Amino acid sequence: MNRSRVLLWGMVLLACLVIVAGHLLPQEPAAAQSPAQGRAVDLLVRNGDVLTMDSAFHEYRPGFVAITGDRITAVGPMTEAAGYKASQTIDAAGKIVLPGLINTHTHAPMTLFRGLGGDSNLMDWLQQYIFPAEAKNVNRDLVKWGTALACYEMIQSGTTTFVDMYYFEDEIAAAAKSAGIRAVLGETILDMPAPDNKTVPEALAYTRKFIEQWRRDPLITPAVAPHAPYTCSRETLLQSQALANEFKVPLVTHLSETEDEVRTITGKYAMTPAAYLDSIGFLQDSLIAAHCVWITDLEIPLLQRRGVGVSHNPESNMKLASGVAPLKRFLDAGIAVGLGTDGAASNNNLDLFEEIDSMAKLHKLWLKDPAFLSAKQALAIATRGGAEVIDRGNDLGTLQAGKLADVILVRTAEPPAIPLYDVYAQLAYSLKGGSVDTVVINGKVIMQDRAVRTLDFGAIRREVGRLQRQITMSLGK
Amino acid sequence: MNRSRVLLWGMVLLACLVIVAGHLLPQEPAAAQSPAQGRAVDLLVRNGDVLTMDSAFHEYRPGFVAITGDRITAVGPMTEAAGYKASQTIDAAGKIVLPGLINTHTHAPMTLFRGLGGDSNLMDWLQQYIFPAEAKNVNRDLVKWGTALACYEMIQSGTTTFVDMYYFEDEIAAAAKSAGIRAVLGETILDMPAPDNKTVPEALAYTRKFIEQWRRDPLITPAVAPHAPYTCSRETLLQSQALANEFKVPLVTHLSETEDEVRTITGKYAMTPAAYLDSIGFLQDSLIAAHCVWITDLEIPLLQRRGVGVSHNPESNMKLASGVAPLKRFLDAGIAVGLGTDGAASNNNLDLFEEIDSMAKLHKLWLKDPAFLSAKQALAIATRGGAEVIDRGNDLGTLQAGKLADVILVRTAEPPAIPLYDVYAQLAYSLKGGSVDTVVINGKVIMQDRAVRTLDFGAIRREVGRLQRQITMSLGK
Repeated sequence: MNRSRVLLWGMVLLACLVIVAGHLLPQEPAAAQSPAQGRAVDLLVRNGDVLTMDSAFHEYRPGFVAITGDRITAVGPMTEAAGYKASQTIDAAGKIVLPGLINTHTHAPMTLFRGLGGDSNLMDWLQQYIFPAEAKNVNRDLVKWGTALACYEMIQSGTTTFVDMYYFEDEIAAAAKSAGIRAVLGETILDMPAPDNKTVPEALAYTRKFIEQWRRDPLITPAVAPHAPYTCSRETLLQSQALANEFKVPLVTHLSETEDEVRTITGKYAMTPAAYLDSIGFLQDSLIAAHCVWITDLEIPLLQRRGVGVSHNPESNMKLASGVAPLKRFLDAGIAVGLGTDGAASNNNLDLFEEIDSMAKLHKLWLKDPAFLSAKQALAIATRGGAEVIDRGNDLGTLQAGKLADVILVRTAEPPAIPLYDVYAQLAYSLKGGSVDTVVINGKVIMQDRAVRTLDFGAIRREVGRLQRQITMSLGK
Repeated sequence: MNRSRVLLWGMVLLACLVIVAGHLLPQEPAAAQSPAQGRAVDLLVRNGDVLTMDSAFHEYRPGFVAITGDRITAVGPMTEAAGYKASQTIDAAGKIVLPGLINTHTHAPMTLFRGLGGDSNLMDWLQQYIFPAEAKNVNRDLVKWGTALACYEMIQSGTTTFVDMYYFEDEIAAAAKSAGIRAVLGETILDMPAPDNKTVPEALAYTRKFIEQWRRDPLITPAVAPHAPYTCSRETLLQSQALANEFKVPLVTHLSETEDEVRTITGKYAMTPAAYLDSIGFLQDSLIAAHCVWITDLEIPLLQRRGVGVSHNPESNMKLASGVAPLKRFLDAGIAVGLGTDGAASNNNLDLFEEIDSMAKLHKLWLKDPAFLSAKQALAIATRGGAEVIDRGNDLGTLQAGKLADVILVRTAEPPAIPLYDVYAQLAYSLKGGSVDTVVINGKVIMQDRAVRTLDFGAIRREVGRLQRQITMSLGK
């Protein structure tokens, strides 16, 4: 072959290579974007207004969330969604996609006492209604169905994790597990006889067994829950703490809920409640302290230094006239703050969207500053903040790859969602739990189109009706 | 005939009379109770838990409401329902039946600014968002569709009457009328150019024409609405009042909403706002005064003596950090108090059930008294109280024979309505507007099973979308 023919064939060969390469190279990314060849995932939530609620408030509008097993595989804009091939797809068009809400303080079975003798003085209410109703009625049966009702209500209003303190906590664990909702659960430990455990040693033994039974569960996190500094001796508190630390599980308590409590503790220990708890070494990172209404300026650094998480319960604190927690000072000090509904008896529902709305409005009023606590910040407290309070910031509270897949979809096509200038404002102020459409917990679709898949509402209603008649008769009212 | 035969025949005749009478007499009441022969009415709401909300809080559980034309014919227990034969029947089993809620203060078209630039200082919010948005966008088109959206939202959350103050009020009247909702409407009169009327004389002339056009309408009550003492001169206020009194229509204004207003008025007239209004003779029975947050102890007797009605707007006052109105002192003084949502831009919805909940909780907290404002009282403010504020206590606000038929049905079969110990607590604290099932206004079924019959929601959504894009562009944001 002469040089010109070599050159010709060389050019033909080069042209062929260019053509082949031209077909191969651009196709690689194209292939990656084709559903037929994308990365296999279990569940793809697509086309929604995705609010990650991460610290930079990244948004993808429209965006997707890809889920494999119990974890989030990827979150991103719709332009990248084709890279994932899912066995199950949820169309989130016209919906906001955000992390599930975290209720950092409730007493789930108290749904069964909702509306009972409200609008009374706290002591009248407790002594004439709640304590007798509890003494006569709290048993496994009541706890089971009260929790089922609470789980149904929480799932329907977008809560995917709740922190609970009550009695027969193993029934609560079983009911929550069967509802498919995530929970941090602590049997109440206190120096008085409870409906189940009559002494502190019994309650501690019960809790030890409870922890051993549930500590490896993917949904249920057992905790140790001494009731409050005014109902637990120093020994009870410290034994509870030791048990929690032995198993590295959360410690849950009520703290500085009322002025009465502050007076009692100050009278007894010459210290305000948080200062007293710190003096006995009880304040620690794994502590979830509910209410914290009357925390003083001197106690704030204690909570901050020890890494205590605060559960703020504005509606219960308003309804029982307990007071207003110093939320801004907690946030300014860098203390982790989450939202809680408290029990339904003092709220009277478990809708965290209502709690977000009330919290934001209450503190704007309290501080005479309408700019305090933006809708974004308020929502962050109910999501990321809650995750930090329960020391699960690495796993929960935001939509980020690698985190557990607790995701909710909220409808925006109906009033009061329209017009939709600001999704955060709409979520914080306009909409309530009734607009939640779909709930995914631990990668599983627990509710879709408002139908809860894991619970038989007919059975719940029937059993709640039976228990209501029983409770009414027991009170002779 | 001998005497004995006369006696015999007489006795036979008497016996026959007794038998015939025996057949006739007892049958009369029986016939009245038979549906086939009962009193004819147009609409019978039956089998519900009927709360009349009258001053003795009479209840019929189960009970009925019979309606003829635009009025309530009878209300009573189900045992008496058979006395009424209706062409249309609504089964209210499992539902609470109560008077429609009355929203005593709103700016309906502001639904279109909902969520726009919230969480700002009041002046920033107004000057950077609301005023520019209004200046560039408020026209007949916006007012029409914003009101349609507001009416849809109010009907869906159980409001049957609203009091409004905005611009192009004749469009609001037409939209409310077409939605079938009752309304008290006043064109805003103020000393600055408005989107429609550029001068006070123009606004007064507009209002005169508006009154003449609507004063005989069964649903729309025209009113005269000078904006506030700080935006209207003494002359503007008095000319407005004269116009209202000429036609015997309500007078509507904002009063003592913020501390700034109190400072302005005190600086100008050396009197607090209500004292100033009284000094010029402006306070009178037909006046509906919105907000009244900063009313002083010295002003309360003035409002009481003049028969002024107060519209309490707790959520707007919280969100804008305006303050807390002295509700208990108003009630103790015997001042008529109703609830209002204010415009959706500062709330951010028009759900009066949320307002009831917030009001009750806020004042319990504020007064440190959980027994203050029972659920019953809170509901009474949103119904009977509202009727008194608009001077329609004889016609509206309770379910009583002879009153206008504005009735709502609320679902109680789903959480958070169960268990149902106390219907008032459930309505005030647990449920929200989303549980309203059926709405009857002026005897007409406006919503049933949550479907609003008078409004085309598809059209509303489309037009709201268009206006949202227009407003967003106009703000260059």
